[in-house]
Parts: sequence; C-alpha cells; structure tokens
Amino acid sequence: MRKFINEPKEAARETVEGFLAVYGSAFEEVPGALAVKRRELADKVAIVSGGGSGHEPVWLEYVGPGLADAVCQGDIFAAPDPGSIVKTAKAVDRGHGILFLYGNYAGDRLNFDLAAEMLVDDGHKVRTVRVTDDVSAAGPDRPIDRRGIAGGFFVAKVAGAAAEAGLPLHTVQALGQEAADRTRSIGVASGAGTVPGTGEPTFDLPDGEMEIGMGMHGEPGVRRTGMLTADETAAEMIDLLLQDRPVTAEDRVCVLVNGLGATTRAELLIVSRAVRRLLGERRLVIHDIQVGDFATCQEMHGFSLSLFAVSPELRPYYDVPARTSFFSGVNQV
Amino acid sequence: MRKFINEPKEAARETVEGFLAVYGSAFEEVPGALAVKRRELADKVAIVSGGGSGHEPVWLEYVGPGLADAVCQGDIFAAPDPGSIVKTAKAVDRGHGILFLYGNYAGDRLNFDLAAEMLVDDGHKVRTVRVTDDVSAAGPDRPIDRRGIAGGFFVAKVAGAAAEAGLPLHTVQALGQEAADRTRSIGVASGAGTVPGTGEPTFDLPDGEMEIGMGMHGEPGVRRTGMLTADETAAEMIDLLLQDRPVTAEDRVCVLVNGLGATTRAELLIVSRAVRRLLGERRLVIHDIQVGDFATCQEMHGFSLSLFAVSPELRPYYDVPARTSFFSGVNQV
Repeated sequence: MRKFINEPKEAARETVEGFLAVYGSAFEEVPGALAVKRRELADKVAIVSGGGSGHEPVWLEYVGPGLADAVCQGDIFAAPDPGSIVKTAKAVDRGHGILFLYGNYAGDRLNFDLAAEMLVDDGHKVRTVRVTDDVSAAGPDRPIDRRGIAGGFFVAKVAGAAAEAGLPLHTVQALGQEAADRTRSIGVASGAGTVPGTGEPTFDLPDGEMEIGMGMHGEPGVRRTGMLTADETAAEMIDLLLQDRPVTAEDRVCVLVNGLGATTRAELLIVSRAVRRLLGERRLVIHDIQVGDFATCQEMHGFSLSLFAVSPELRPYYDVPARTSFFSGVNQV
Repeated sequence: MRKFINEPKEAARETVEGFLAVYGSAFEEVPGALAVKRRELADKVAIVSGGGSGHEPVWLEYVGPGLADAVCQGDIFAAPDPGSIVKTAKAVDRGHGILFLYGNYAGDRLNFDLAAEMLVDDGHKVRTVRVTDDVSAAGPDRPIDRRGIAGGFFVAKVAGAAAEAGLPLHTVQALGQEAADRTRSIGVASGAGTVPGTGEPTFDLPDGEMEIGMGMHGEPGVRRTGMLTADETAAEMIDLLLQDRPVTAEDRVCVLVNGLGATTRAELLIVSRAVRRLLGERRLVIHDIQVGDFATCQEMHGFSLSLFAVSPELRPYYDVPARTSFFSGVNQV
C-alpha cells in the first residue's frame, strides 16, 4: 500500500473536502450529499454530473463556468445514491430544468434515472445525456451499451456552453447528445491501479503486456499483446476510432490524449506527437488537442485517446471558454 | 517495462516534439538545441530555464507569458550542454539581458555557468537564480547545497512577472532570489519511478515504507518509516518546513501540493485538506494553493509540499497572471 490517505472508507469524502479546501472560493458543498456546486449560479439550465469516486478529476472537478453546475460523487467506484443526486439537482435548478450528464455505467444509469423520476414528481424538468464513447465496450450496432470514458470532457464542454448560452433544456440536451454521438474513445492499459485501502490491483496484467481497449476498471478490451511502441499503439488506436466513426471533410477533430493515472506527461506528449502525425496523414484538420489526466483510475498505467468530430454547428459551443481546476483552455493548433 | 515510448534514447527529443505538436501555436523549437521558446517575445529581460528531462512539466513546460521565455532540456536526468544553453539564450535575448533560472544540481550549475561565461564573452548580460528549496538536502547552515524541487514554480512565477513588468536584469534577479530565499519544500516517496528504456527503479524502497525528504532521483531523505496516514505525513512535513523557515505575521503563504508522478489527484486533495487545516491552526494566511503535478520524476509515488512566504512586496508579482500548458491560474482562497 503506497497511498497517502487516512481511513480508506473516508477517502471519497475527504477528497471532496480537499477539493473545497483548495477551490472553495468558487465552489461549496451541497448539504447532505457528497457533492459540490458552483457558488454563483447563472439563470440557465442546470447541468448535474456525477459518478463513482476514484477517477479524479472525473466527475468531481468537471464543475465550473462552461461545464457542470454541480457534481454528485458516489463512494469509490460506486454510483451516487438517488437521494443525493436529487439534493444536488435541487440545489442548482433555477427553474429552467436539469440536464443529467454522466458515464454510461449500470449503477449510474439506475440511480440517475430514479433521481430523475423523483425530481419530475416534484415538478422539475429533467433530461439526460449519457457518455458512451468507449468503442471497445460493445459492437458498433449496440452503442447503447458502450461505457463512458474520457470523451465525456467533450460532451460536458458542448453541453456546458449550450447551457451558458441560455438555450432551453431540450436544445442543451440535443447539443450534448450530438457531441456524445460524435465522440469516440479507446483506452490502453499497461499496469493496474490499486484499490484504496486494500492495495489490491484493479485488474491482472502481467508486466510487459498491454491491453488495448481495456476499461478503466479492468473491463476486457479488444486485444492483449506484448508492449508495443508509443507510435504503434497510437496507430492501432486511431485506426479503431476512425473505423468506428469516420470523420467527414466538413468536420474538424478535437483530440484528447488522456493519462489514466501513473502515465508520465512525457509519454502523453510522445503519444500526442504520433496522433498529430497520424491525423495529418489522413488530412484531418485538428481543431484542438488536450493532453493531461482528464479521467483516471487510481495509479493505472495507460492512456486513452478520444476523437470528437466537431461539426461547424457545434464548434462555436466547443470554443466557449470554460474554467475549472484541471483545464486551462483550448489549444488551437 | 510499462512505458509508452519509442526508442528510449529518443524519448527526451520526442517529448519536446510532442510538446510542440500540442502547443506549437505559442511555442517553437530553438534550432540546434533540445529547447523551446515563445513565438512572441516581449521587449524585456529574457528568462531561460532548463535541466534534465524526465521531470515533466519541469522545465519544458515552464515557458509562456509570466514564466520563462525559453527552456533548454538535457537528456533524461542529465543537464543540458553549455552550447545548447547558449543557443537557447541567444534566441531570446532582446538586449535587456538573460536570467538563468534552474534547480541547484551540480551538472546544471556547471553547464549553465559555462554557458554564462560564453554569453558574457559574446557581449550578453547574464544573471542567475538557483532554486534551493529542498530542506532535506542539507542543514540549515548550508543552504547553498540544497537541491531545487517543485518550489521552483514560485520562483519562476515571481521572476517571470518581474521581467514582464519591464524591470531591469538586476532587479528581476533580486526579486527572483528573494522568492527563492522565501521558498521551502520537502518531498515524501512511497514508491520509485522507473528509468525509461531499462525499467529499472530510480531507487529501492520496500513496499509499505515511505521516506520523508527523499529527493526526486532517490537522494536520501530525513526519515524512513512504515506508511503514515496522509494527515500524519502532512503534519510532519509542515513542521519541518516551518522549523526551517518560520513565516512571520506580515507574510502570507503560497502552497504547492505537488504530485511526483503516480500519486492520485484524490491523494493530493486529501493532503491539501490537511495542509489547509495545519496552516490554519498556526493562524497563517494562505494566499494561494496550487495542487497538481508541477515537478515529477517518472511514475514516482509520493508528493512534495512547498511553502512560499510571500511578502507584501512580492505579492503583486506573484499575482500577475501566467499562462502555460499545465497551470490555469491563481486560486485565492
């Protein structure tokens, strides 16, 4: 056990408290829930995200101008309970309705749907966008079962901008769903993270092997192999992404090179170099590249690549500045 | 070996190329050196940083408005050569002189000093500030031998702002040195990183043990022990920092909770929660808290704490906005 925590069962709560200890001038807790909200709420559709803890900055830090208004965290790797989601949503609804935005995992789906029913019974308007970007999670004919991974950043950014623009709930949902439909991701793992407290690895992967498509919790991927080079790995992943959803001539591409926890920044930059070349060879126009730890699973070694085929209609929303603790702006290249 | 790289001997170069593949709209390479510079140079003192690769974002990404104008990288864990430093400095000197700003390691000191001599011979003005923040590296009576670690961020931020303000070289140096004199850091390690290519650990530390004060390359620290809690660890480290340099009533404190590579963001936030409480108990006023991976050593598990006792005179410089790839702004709490 190498982690610097206190009581393992308090780790999720103390993480939220730590977030507020640092960023408390802009955010505050939602009483009665493991949740944070913006202190200053605009008069607009409220965006509420959330999910299991242990993937920081997801979803805890996806809050701020141009992103979510509140996030509700569950315990480590566990969905937030419906009651907490309801409290969180009520704390930020300004009467224009609530958009739930979260990753497509069974527990989250169940609890956010239950919360939506409870909120509707109380007179709130609720709509939902689920992030389903992981191409390895199911065949192309069953996108509904696909998991949400780091590409949720693109969905949150578009939906957040649409809400900031004062658009009505159904339009914010439609634009967010359009961003989700245009986003594809795939991960690769070369080493597991460990569960806080037990120190148990989140999956078994022999040293010197990697698995393309492995999910953040060790869900099976598409191929296990000995370590490939960064260039070979990136090429195989970009192929899988573009086979699943080709990018047309009128679209531009937003790229996210996401570290899963223990991957060094140097590796992410070396991968970014390969991705830029691979997309250039296909004559695709890159609109933005983001590099960093946007969605992690403990100290997992590996990365994910996300491509968002941003249409001319969605581009103005993507370009709206957002401000949060881990994101510093769009890098137009 | 778990790393996503290509040829290990090309990793440092490809990291720089990856940085430019992502951030190339604002930065460009310095021909003939493993170095990058800002595309738009202001008419002011030039700040040049650098050091061994493998500690990203240090120093590669410490470049941009309000920070360095150029950085010169060495190979992994190796100082840049004097010729490359000279090329880098000449590429950004606008006639107001050059401030060298780097961590106090023997190789860097030697090569930057040689470069300074060569530049002076060519008619350039050069001054130097060395970062010496690591309190574990030597006794309080020998600060000159202290290593530079993550606290260099504070030094770079103050010197960068002083240069942006158009101040002359000797004043930029004096303000940077004052920031260095007021900055103290200490690290803790619970697991080693590995050397790219060989996969060899950067130091030996049995699982379940931690070492307070260990340097980024495994330099010996002040105490090895079984794992403590986050709160206990933070308390011991804050004690060491404040014993070494007490903070007086007129000063405020800027805090950096820095991840060394594989440490999760949740851990850093839990540590931040403890640090905020510990400083509050001492009635110290926190001016800013930064949390993130500001100076790493591969996938090393651990963190460092830095305290910068910012005086009323230095505060306006610290508060000048800076923009770089890994830093999103000051979090006044």
